[in-house]
Amino acid sequence: MRALYLRHPGGFNPLALEKVRSVPGIELTEETAWESMDPEQLADRIRAFDILLLSRAPGLSDSLAEEPGNLKWICYLHGGIKNKIGLPVIRSSIQVTNWGDHPAVELAEGSLVLLMCCLKDVHHRILHVRRNGSRQERIRSVGGTTNGLRVGVYGYGYAGKAFVRLLQPLGTQIRVYDPYAAELPEGCARAESLEALFDGIQAVVVHAALTPETEKSITAELLAKLPDHGIVVNTARGAIIDQDALFAELKAGRLRAGLDVLSPDHLPEDHEARTWDNLIYGGHCFGQMEPWPGEDPLTRRDVNVLENLRAFMENRPLKDLIDERKYALMT
Amino acid sequence: MRALYLRHPGGFNPLALEKVRSVPGIELTEETAWESMDPEQLADRIRAFDILLLSRAPGLSDSLAEEPGNLKWICYLHGGIKNKIGLPVIRSSIQVTNWGDHPAVELAEGSLVLLMCCLKDVHHRILHVRRNGSRQERIRSVGGTTNGLRVGVYGYGYAGKAFVRLLQPLGTQIRVYDPYAAELPEGCARAESLEALFDGIQAVVVHAALTPETEKSITAELLAKLPDHGIVVNTARGAIIDQDALFAELKAGRLRAGLDVLSPDHLPEDHEARTWDNLIYGGHCFGQMEPWPGEDPLTRRDVNVLENLRAFMENRPLKDLIDERKYALMT
Repeated sequence: MRALYLRHPGGFNPLALEKVRSVPGIELTEETAWESMDPEQLADRIRAFDILLLSRAPGLSDSLAEEPGNLKWICYLHGGIKNKIGLPVIRSSIQVTNWGDHPAVELAEGSLVLLMCCLKDVHHRILHVRRNGSRQERIRSVGGTTNGLRVGVYGYGYAGKAFVRLLQPLGTQIRVYDPYAAELPEGCARAESLEALFDGIQAVVVHAALTPETEKSITAELLAKLPDHGIVVNTARGAIIDQDALFAELKAGRLRAGLDVLSPDHLPEDHEARTWDNLIYGGHCFGQMEPWPGEDPLTRRDVNVLENLRAFMENRPLKDLIDERKYALMT
Repeated sequence: MRALYLRHPGGFNPLALEKVRSVPGIELTEETAWESMDPEQLADRIRAFDILLLSRAPGLSDSLAEEPGNLKWICYLHGGIKNKIGLPVIRSSIQVTNWGDHPAVELAEGSLVLLMCCLKDVHHRILHVRRNGSRQERIRSVGGTTNGLRVGVYGYGYAGKAFVRLLQPLGTQIRVYDPYAAELPEGCARAESLEALFDGIQAVVVHAALTPETEKSITAELLAKLPDHGIVVNTARGAIIDQDALFAELKAGRLRAGLDVLSPDHLPEDHEARTWDNLIYGGHCFGQMEPWPGEDPLTRRDVNVLENLRAFMENRPLKDLIDERKYALMT
């Protein structure tokens, strides 16, 4: 089978590329000149291959849907695909996969550490030490423990599920709002609305996708329902929260927040939020990591792709297929 | 029964004191003038009571062991008692209890958040944002995830056990060294020596007590076995680690550390460690917390004390009794 890889910094590292090349039966072509092609030229190039390995760019022409040529499978190496692959392609004969649950564990870990950092005022403590704070001024954190903490989890997809798994041994009381979640695990209460999720919780953790339904769905009114020192954690998408409302609460010192994402994602260099002790901002790179020295640098994303490539070569079903329903719920 | 409480800032808050007063059959006397008494005067005062409720100060005279008077029970409101209550008293007819597993969960949470903060370079990220770091300079954390992380846990008492429980869903590979631990949970490997604990781990988490056996037991040689970017977490006692050796590794930028405790515990105001981005120092107050506004401010310590008071009044056995063996293993 012929596979085309449009080379991109977000794609494979050398080891992963070598592993892809050595999957039995794969004949891999690397295309580095795709940036100089117009969408239809690129579509023509793609049609000559059975498999397309696609990273964060470029976007694809919908003309592939009607005229796929040899193309049977688009293996997208990341998560949300809406800006890259149109609905006509999803509805066509071409199979489309993404990285499945790859970043879910990292997102869940990010939410956990941000939640615990807020609870224990880690930001404040770090700055206190740098400012030569003495031990006598002991910092006491409101809440301070996950034990008994009432947490609302907004969104129960891959990342929300992984987060709840991490949270369960910490003695928290968990409530989940996700109208698309069929089942919740034992010990999790279901909120029937986003308003109900915010009733009586002390911390909210966002793991929803960004869709027209979720955009700015965490409003000033909902934030006002959190108690003083209440916590907002977001590793999903910034635009799910009414950011002006949240920033007003943070500036007033009423709430605490751990945000890996903002809207827009970059915080201007002179933005006053950079000086707030009650905000940890992750710069949308909280999950970025490098392998330990001397360790295997294949990510789980790469492992998933290699498994799917072998499945494809052996005529087994692909994992992490994107259908129209999944597509609609994606960021 | 007559109970004497030597009032101390580390003791009861007003609600807890009110609850103690209202245990059926307890007649509580508060003593605020104990600082002006010499040890034998104080011992005489104590002999008139059945129960002594003792916070971080004062230390008690060993003469109580031979002449307990009415004293049947010393309820120590904290953990390590060696500087407060001598071995003769432990060996005497007087029952001695401490706060049992009270701080174990908080210590375990502290270790978890410090471990994850090191793994994800939270300190570095926070400072990066304050220094107007742009998104383009993305921080990539070595290791970055607990998933697959090889963690060595030194000490498997109350806190070590609680920490392992929190760690298990995070996909870590756990190895424990504790010569006094009879059994380890499923999925935990046992190290037969401290040297063996350090073989191949990427992070070490200290939950041992400080005893002559453990003092400075984490040596320069053991620290050198950790890989570059390896992690040291300590919420137990600073003196368990050869601090000069650890600080040399941190100053060189080779290791990362999350330390709630140092030896001595206070970091001098002008100490250069205050400026290191690879050290989170907690100032031995990482577990200090206040209740959420409007929530019940009884700590689990208070709840445990109240349970023991009721047990004592009803002639049931006390929990968290300190015998000679436990005493020997305490900090």
